[in-house]
Amino acid sequence: MAIKLIGFPQPPNTLRVVLTLNELDLPFEFESVTDFKTIKTEDFIANKHPFGKVPVLCDGDFVIHESRAICRYLVSKYQKDAKVVLIPDDPNKAAIVEQYLSYETSYYDPPLSKIVYQEIVNKKYGKPTDEAVVKQALEDIEKVLDIYEKVLEGKDYLTGEYSLADLLHIGYAQVIYTATAHSDIFEKRPNVKRWIDNLRNRDAFKKTYA
Amino acid sequence: MAIKLIGFPQPPNTLRVVLTLNELDLPFEFESVTDFKTIKTEDFIANKHPFGKVPVLCDGDFVIHESRAICRYLVSKYQKDAKVVLIPDDPNKAAIVEQYLSYETSYYDPPLSKIVYQEIVNKKYGKPTDEAVVKQALEDIEKVLDIYEKVLEGKDYLTGEYSLADLLHIGYAQVIYTATAHSDIFEKRPNVKRWIDNLRNRDAFKKTYA
Ligand SMILES: N[C@@H](CCC(=O)N[C@@H](CS)C(=O)NCC(=O)O)C(=O)O
Ligand SMILES: N[C@@H](CCC(=O)N[C@@H](CS)C(=O)NCC(=O)O)C(=O)O
Repeated sequence: MAIKLIGFPQPPNTLRVVLTLNELDLPFEFESVTDFKTIKTEDFIANKHPFGKVPVLCDGDFVIHESRAICRYLVSKYQKDAKVVLIPDDPNKAAIVEQYLSYETSYYDPPLSKIVYQEIVNKKYGKPTDEAVVKQALEDIEKVLDIYEKVLEGKDYLTGEYSLADLLHIGYAQVIYTATAHSDIFEKRPNVKRWIDNLRNRDAFKKTYA
Repeated sequence: MAIKLIGFPQPPNTLRVVLTLNELDLPFEFESVTDFKTIKTEDFIANKHPFGKVPVLCDGDFVIHESRAICRYLVSKYQKDAKVVLIPDDPNKAAIVEQYLSYETSYYDPPLSKIVYQEIVNKKYGKPTDEAVVKQALEDIEKVLDIYEKVLEGKDYLTGEYSLADLLHIGYAQVIYTATAHSDIFEKRPNVKRWIDNLRNRDAFKKTYA
């Protein structure tokens, strides 16, 4: 069955799914959203995403939305035929991957999404950046990355081996590197920097962000 | 192997795990954290949770932290012997559960955790409530629950059948009902109210919140 991805061709949300598709070596068709009005139509909200958001994935007739849910779906459906293991079958190993997936949503995404919202989204729409929010978010992410620095001691990836948990972290890192002046939050921590470099050196990453 | 749960005996984080244990009918020992100093010790941070947080679950020698990761672990390890299905085996059905699990972390938890932080945590530590934050969070959750109201039309649970996605929503709802004056956000929406009532009528819920 043909896979079609509907999305906004920017990190982090849609490219998270593209990276998963590329890691699993799955061919897909990309339908680019250029005008956000198209995802707020009655039809899109009724049939694609009740919140009027992208990415949305269509795998034949099966429609699924929310980037992290789509990535998990692709893993559970197609990993068995792939060369890479993104979530191990063993429940204990999978649980450790889940632990770091929870770090991503609980501690890593919230401050980084605030910075990106204030400095990039607001700018795009001509709104001012709330510097106090950015300052607090930077303090928060610095504390979080101090803990990552310890977790990553002597390891190439969060669990030791590459997994979906690492994959889901690279989207915001990429935005911070390419569109803000804050890449020092990664660069000044040797273990975090080595980890980010490992992630950016993967073939699927290069294909995704080419 | 004996299961031990280390936690703070309040919703939402630790009770989320207790509810999953009760749904799966798993016996466990509960180690209650009464003083937060105990989770900030060098030993706890090195061996239990690098962020110095609870809940932490020990299943024999295997240690795992982060409430949602623990719930997923319990499902993938023990659901096969249980009467309830919290994540279906079928990848398409599981994907729809994942979609609603992502609603919980992306849209539901962020505004509710802000309200609880401002009105309950701050009060506990003698700090003032930032009313502007509460107001914005209430506006956000009202919009989110308007969408839930549509999603839940004609359904008992988010996917139609009870799942981990429903289970993870009840923690904050319970805090809102029992410790704030905002339960109208659920009560005034008939489908949302019916859903919350369904969740609170489950045996495992009653056992957990007794
Ligand atoms: N939780 C969603 C977030 C998706 C999201 O925010 N997508 C953006 C585009 S990258 C969007 O659709 N924005 C339009 C809106 O929020 O109204 C996911 O993980 O897929
Ligand atoms: N993302 C964590 C959050 C856990 C959490 O915040 N737990 C509270 C107690 S209910 C805690 O340990 N607070 C101490 C702290 O954050 O320093 C989870 O889902 O388990």
